Amino acid sequence: MSAGENVIIVGKKSVNDYVLAAILLFNEGHDEIVIKGKGANIGKAVDVYNALKDRLSDSLELVSVTIDSEVLGNRIIPYIEIKVRRTL
Amino acid sequence: MSAGENVIIVGKKSVNDYVLAAILLFNEGHDEIVIKGKGANIGKAVDVYNALKDRLSDSLELVSVTIDSEVLGNRIIPYIEIKVRRTL
Repeated sequence: MSAGENVIIVGKKSVNDYVLAAILLFNEGHDEIVIKGKGANIGKAVDVYNALKDRLSDSLELVSVTIDSEVLGNRIIPYIEIKVRRTL
Repeated sequence: MSAGENVIIVGKKSVNDYVLAAILLFNEGHDEIVIKGKGANIGKAVDVYNALKDRLSDSLELVSVTIDSEVLGNRIIPYIEIKVRRTL
């Protein structure tokens, strides 16, 4: 995955803020977006996915879920990447 | 997924406890196990997966990751299911 403009990094804002950010990206013409959460925000990334699914229902398709960890300085941070696609 | 004996529900115990539980299941002859975390334990389930991967390295294969939500009474609880396989 390249760190393009279609990646939403889930942080301290509300779940709804990230849902809106995702919908804006779709409306800008991105077919696929990635919702990424690190460490303590992994659960929130799943919340964002579920809230987005509630909002877009059948027009949202789950492409893939990646879980892994990355080294940041001397810490190992787990992360999740949820790739979704909007169909029509 | 059937709720068989090969599902580890991640709760309040330590990450290492669940890693050990997974290794015990593999040693009992299960080829695949599912690490499941609900709500606030979603991130911890990913931690368990990463710790298990560190321990078993190349002999652990990630089969699939499922994220969804389930209705429990009048609450909607998101969850993650991480299916892993031991090779060799």
